[in-house]
Amino acid sequence: MRVLAKDIVKAVIDGQGTGEKADAEVEVSGWVHRIRDMGGITFVILRDRSGTLQLVLDEKPVDAGGRPLTLESVITVRGKPALNDKAPGGCELKVSSLQILSRALPDLPYQVNGDISRTGLEAILDNRSLSLRNPKIRAIFKIQATIIEAFSAHLRSLDFTEIKSSKLTAGSTEGGTELFEVEYFDRKVYLAQSPQLYKETMVAAGLERVFEVAPAYRAEKHDTPRHLNEYVSMDVEMGFIESELELIELEKGLLTHIFEEVARKNGPELEMWGAAVPSAEMVGKSPTIPYEEAVKIANDEAAKTKGGSARIFDINPEAERLVCAWSLREHGSDLVFVNEFPRRYRPFYTYPKDTADGAAVSTMSFDALFRGLEITTGGRRQHDYNALVETLPRFGLKAENMTGFLSVFKYGCPPHGGFAIGCERLTQKILGLANVKEASLFPRDRKRVEP
Amino acid sequence: MRVLAKDIVKAVIDGQGTGEKADAEVEVSGWVHRIRDMGGITFVILRDRSGTLQLVLDEKPVDAGGRPLTLESVITVRGKPALNDKAPGGCELKVSSLQILSRALPDLPYQVNGDISRTGLEAILDNRSLSLRNPKIRAIFKIQATIIEAFSAHLRSLDFTEIKSSKLTAGSTEGGTELFEVEYFDRKVYLAQSPQLYKETMVAAGLERVFEVAPAYRAEKHDTPRHLNEYVSMDVEMGFIESELELIELEKGLLTHIFEEVARKNGPELEMWGAAVPSAEMVGKSPTIPYEEAVKIANDEAAKTKGGSARIFDINPEAERLVCAWSLREHGSDLVFVNEFPRRYRPFYTYPKDTADGAAVSTMSFDALFRGLEITTGGRRQHDYNALVETLPRFGLKAENMTGFLSVFKYGCPPHGGFAIGCERLTQKILGLANVKEASLFPRDRKRVEP
Repeated sequence: MRVLAKDIVKAVIDGQGTGEKADAEVEVSGWVHRIRDMGGITFVILRDRSGTLQLVLDEKPVDAGGRPLTLESVITVRGKPALNDKAPGGCELKVSSLQILSRALPDLPYQVNGDISRTGLEAILDNRSLSLRNPKIRAIFKIQATIIEAFSAHLRSLDFTEIKSSKLTAGSTEGGTELFEVEYFDRKVYLAQSPQLYKETMVAAGLERVFEVAPAYRAEKHDTPRHLNEYVSMDVEMGFIESELELIELEKGLLTHIFEEVARKNGPELEMWGAAVPSAEMVGKSPTIPYEEAVKIANDEAAKTKGGSARIFDINPEAERLVCAWSLREHGSDLVFVNEFPRRYRPFYTYPKDTADGAAVSTMSFDALFRGLEITTGGRRQHDYNALVETLPRFGLKAENMTGFLSVFKYGCPPHGGFAIGCERLTQKILGLANVKEASLFPRDRKRVEP
Repeated sequence: MRVLAKDIVKAVIDGQGTGEKADAEVEVSGWVHRIRDMGGITFVILRDRSGTLQLVLDEKPVDAGGRPLTLESVITVRGKPALNDKAPGGCELKVSSLQILSRALPDLPYQVNGDISRTGLEAILDNRSLSLRNPKIRAIFKIQATIIEAFSAHLRSLDFTEIKSSKLTAGSTEGGTELFEVEYFDRKVYLAQSPQLYKETMVAAGLERVFEVAPAYRAEKHDTPRHLNEYVSMDVEMGFIESELELIELEKGLLTHIFEEVARKNGPELEMWGAAVPSAEMVGKSPTIPYEEAVKIANDEAAKTKGGSARIFDINPEAERLVCAWSLREHGSDLVFVNEFPRRYRPFYTYPKDTADGAAVSTMSFDALFRGLEITTGGRRQHDYNALVETLPRFGLKAENMTGFLSVFKYGCPPHGGFAIGCERLTQKILGLANVKEASLFPRDRKRVEP
């Protein structure tokens, strides 16, 4: 009966936890993290999913063929736990028997138990089965798992239904320039950029409130620290809203819950990165700024820091950083919502802000910027069939090519809207990772399709 | 402030629930489910995500242009709730004001408020935004959401970490015959058939226990009631196991929790389909039968029911039905685990059952059959690098083409195994749906890529 390293440490230190007597033999299994040959005795640090434990061996450990134990081999040992102030964690295991379950080849491509900051990103991504053995790298994905769990739990508590929609679509609602093509039997389909229309279909179908956590695809050619060609999109859509402001409130509640859960469950992981999540109070103080004002703020900030004149014309990556810096200084939060984006920057289905004169220039849309990076795009959508039919030509689209899309709005669709949070970007910004690829287990970019 | 239909019914009947006084005006929003013009007054059944409510209107409802209210339009009404024994649910709302949020065109392709059993599968799938308005159809996906939630919660409680792996792979570990090809910039990649290797990488990387809920793809040409070309795979992988029997125990616990949660949360939905989930006791009684014995049972059953001689040579769809029928009769459970599949039926990485003579014919693998359908394939995997290298040629594979795969096992990989549950198949069999496509929101088959 296997016991985890952390439970042995706990049992010895606290005298509780394993369910076995502290002086009885226990069995532990894991990876050989470190070997220290002291002549007569050998110290081995064993690592399992829960932590590490010092093993003390009287004999030099070898396999059946007499070859010495290698770093990163997987072993099972039995022995008696004992207090030892000098051992990491304050206890160790005096080993009576050792079994090698899997012998690691001795040519490790890089040092697993060393300082990961010396390992380049490409080597980390090329060797996922090794790089994730480093607790600091693994911490990224422990936090990501908490993000997904908290996202889902919060929405369920608000009566949202989880959906799973198709990632294969016959076409695109947003134009076909950035789509990956799939050979689908005797025709071509495309990898979905977003579950947008499926979410809207579910709202119209009476589920009213839905969410989905699933891959999304962008065939963008640029290779930057903020782009992935395949990412995990955490999508939300809800009916019976009046404007994007209700969506911003929903996202504030959602992020607050996610941050609280990460703080509660992932204290050690945050510590490894010297990171902290924003408090509920901080999220509450996040301002919502109309697009035009945000552009002005970005220009003012740029002028201040660089002494130059205004030269920022939209919310580009530099503006995202500047607006967040401004918000942190002025509002005590570097989470900022920018709303009322101009129509020209938003897809045709975005709900216009003002229809009084029939030529709205602004929309009920928003982005969320967090620590200098856009993590969310969202907004209210046009739900009115006739308005959609009228809008299409203005965006160079033809109603006759959009019958599938339009049919969703033909037979009663409530006012609605939604947004998506980029899971990797949120992970990246919580931990302060330099590149969003670090927050993807198996990132895909123009060059990388393996592992 | 919008109130849900079920909360009004509850407030009037129980005198609690809305937070508003029962004699105050309330606001409800939803779809026009039914209209009954009684001359002087009009009864409208309003449907929202929570249920239905009878509205009473003194005037014939019309829109701003004087057109009569249409079925399936989305409306918001205000009015006072009142007891009425004759109304569905025992109460109704006397409407003082009505607003049409979205007028449904009067040419509904089929009757939403009628008996869904008259509507063919193709019409249901073609019109998802309408067909899901039928509570019985919507019930399928309420239950599916519970399945996914319960699957994830149970595994988290056992220290499994949720992962999100890439769905784009450079090649296939199982041969390339049933893969969809993707144009990926200047090269070709494939849609993943399963997260198999990624799960194994995570076990080797020290996460030890992982799960994933994500789409999986099979480019199979057959169009049967049991196949989807894109499905939701609920995947599990765990380290430090000795045989497939531990995986079967894990799946029993998992299914028990899923069934319990569906029973607890989806009573009304099960009732609509006249369905019931197996009890924990029933799951506990599920037998595990070696492959050869299962084939014999299937033949015996076939001979009994059809009077013919033995003619079943493997666990094909007919055998799945026969073995489940046998198990229900003999063991009181139509959940059956078949293990020890012959090597020729399993992928090369399946762990051999007996290596004593170096030529194992059986494997540490299993299928789960539920109510006549295979819902799971799983097993222990070969974790030994040298054994994998030796095995490859026997399956017509070359080590030099599999370096990425093999690297996962080079530097210490614990004994491990896992399985996947087909989410749509489990949903199908819980409810007794005739076709697995009914359990997919947007199914993809050889002909269908829309909506």
